[in-house]
Amino acid sequence: MTNIPKAVAYTDGRLRLIDQTALPSSLTHIETDDYREVIAAIKRLAVRGAPAIGIAGAYGVALAAREALTLPERERADFLHTAMGAISAARPTAVNLPWAIQRVRDVVGAAPTVDAQLVTTIEREGAAIAAEDEAMCRKIGQHGAALIGQGAGVLTICNTGALATGGIGTALGAIYIAHEQGKAPRVYACETRPALQGSRLTVWELLQSGVTVTLIVDSAAAVLMAEGKVDLVIVGADRIAANGDTANKIGTYALATLAAAHDLPFYVAAPRTTFDPATESLDNSIIEQRDPNEIRHGFGALTAPETAPVYSPAFDITPRRLITGYITDEGITLGGRASG
Amino acid sequence: MTNIPKAVAYTDGRLRLIDQTALPSSLTHIETDDYREVIAAIKRLAVRGAPAIGIAGAYGVALAAREALTLPERERADFLHTAMGAISAARPTAVNLPWAIQRVRDVVGAAPTVDAQLVTTIEREGAAIAAEDEAMCRKIGQHGAALIGQGAGVLTICNTGALATGGIGTALGAIYIAHEQGKAPRVYACETRPALQGSRLTVWELLQSGVTVTLIVDSAAAVLMAEGKVDLVIVGADRIAANGDTANKIGTYALATLAAAHDLPFYVAAPRTTFDPATESLDNSIIEQRDPNEIRHGFGALTAPETAPVYSPAFDITPRRLITGYITDEGITLGGRASG
Repeated sequence: MTNIPKAVAYTDGRLRLIDQTALPSSLTHIETDDYREVIAAIKRLAVRGAPAIGIAGAYGVALAAREALTLPERERADFLHTAMGAISAARPTAVNLPWAIQRVRDVVGAAPTVDAQLVTTIEREGAAIAAEDEAMCRKIGQHGAALIGQGAGVLTICNTGALATGGIGTALGAIYIAHEQGKAPRVYACETRPALQGSRLTVWELLQSGVTVTLIVDSAAAVLMAEGKVDLVIVGADRIAANGDTANKIGTYALATLAAAHDLPFYVAAPRTTFDPATESLDNSIIEQRDPNEIRHGFGALTAPETAPVYSPAFDITPRRLITGYITDEGITLGGRASG
Repeated sequence: MTNIPKAVAYTDGRLRLIDQTALPSSLTHIETDDYREVIAAIKRLAVRGAPAIGIAGAYGVALAAREALTLPERERADFLHTAMGAISAARPTAVNLPWAIQRVRDVVGAAPTVDAQLVTTIEREGAAIAAEDEAMCRKIGQHGAALIGQGAGVLTICNTGALATGGIGTALGAIYIAHEQGKAPRVYACETRPALQGSRLTVWELLQSGVTVTLIVDSAAAVLMAEGKVDLVIVGADRIAANGDTANKIGTYALATLAAAHDLPFYVAAPRTTFDPATESLDNSIIEQRDPNEIRHGFGALTAPETAPVYSPAFDITPRRLITGYITDEGITLGGRASG
């Protein structure tokens, strides 16, 4: 699967990111040896998707450590810790970013001095984070692909693929493996208003990879199901509570409800780390609101009155009873619709 | 309800249309005495909504008849019939347009000559078509308002209001009457991808009229229902078959399915003339596809790869079993969910 794009790549002190803000218009890369540019890329969403941000952040620390070597030895540790703090804070809501930086911080803390040896150790830690994510995606993909029949219609939402992770993605990972197995899945990608990650990113990376994909507006998912074009739905997850409640991109709960009404399986694909056993259940009160101007000014044009009141939850919560199963790197766990 | 906008108005040989392509950025009117400008306005969707187009077309014939009076008497009839043919063909899929022009054509056919008397007769026919539509909207509104409780949350899609008709609209007509009755309805307007008639037009006219309205992306309708914010759904209709199958804007079937899953009433509001007893049932095979570039190029920006395959049905079909009732100018007819 050589055509699956790589959101984050690192070689010998240079970090290379796909500039996702330029997609789908052009495939542009950001190549830098400056950790400040990595922070800027995270802030302006040039790199997005929680795992991809974590990997980019870890490599950003490697760039900062290389820069530290150019300073007098007594200044290096302060410089590096300041850089790690700034990288970790680049995007407050992304849980993988502080997690990845903490892993690197532990490596730094265990080292006696900031020297060339530490740079190598940090680079290895970044590579390990990336490799672990890549392997996890592949396992999720292998478990998920077993659920996809020959020529199956698979409906998905948002972007959960190579652009969001260090590997082939979660929900899209299952699709990529099915494609690799010659199952020729037919993917339907919801455009995913308001930020259009489906039309801008998912359609782009599936076309790059030779997977058959058709773009729909979010409100056309139901009629696709009624017409028999969809065999199963696979989505990603931002957080899964102990009781199976799943927070994911706005529109996910609608797809789960529609899948149940059409007696179609609905799967959530996510690494084990997305499961949060400390949280008993989720409810909509925790959901952040997006900027109303994303909807009032869709695509640059004025698409609603300037003063229009807007309700724009970023995520919604799908209860376990609407979920057929959870596809993780450890296998498939049954949901509340398992008998259906 | 003095603030409800008037999409089409005619006085003494001048037709005044709200230029709906300028909404919501600005309230601009097209004022013309030239029927060719009426055709142009219909073609570029400056006036839209089947009833509003029919009324504009009928008045367009009045403008053409006035212009005919400036010609030698022997040329007038040919000129007028050519104009009527051109107006009738301005938008092929709008059934109200040829219907309205046929009404005017019958008036013209019954007249001995094209003279000032005929101009007055045509103007009266145009006014009659407008007045009938206005009265029909009001009756639909009165029947529908009885279903809206004090402070009720009403979810709707597309634009079915004053901008689309000669009066207060169909689904929005019920909301306007409920507002007039002091029921303070809380309206949730789906933005209605791909053409955004909800965010651009419905939100605009409800804000103009002082009705409480909140804009949502289409995929947020389900979570609103789950949160208890919606008490009922009211939508319009493009065509209703003998068995109750209802064709309406894409996304309607999703709302009907979601309303059933949340045990919320789902009503279709439409004049009796939308019922087509000659058609036994409807299926999705009759549905036209919209231009894929509407989705690939959302409002000028490239929002999907240029080569993205797109499935973009303009309408969908909601079966009677998902419809609680039909709100018409003659009263309320029960649907297949009436017992629920």
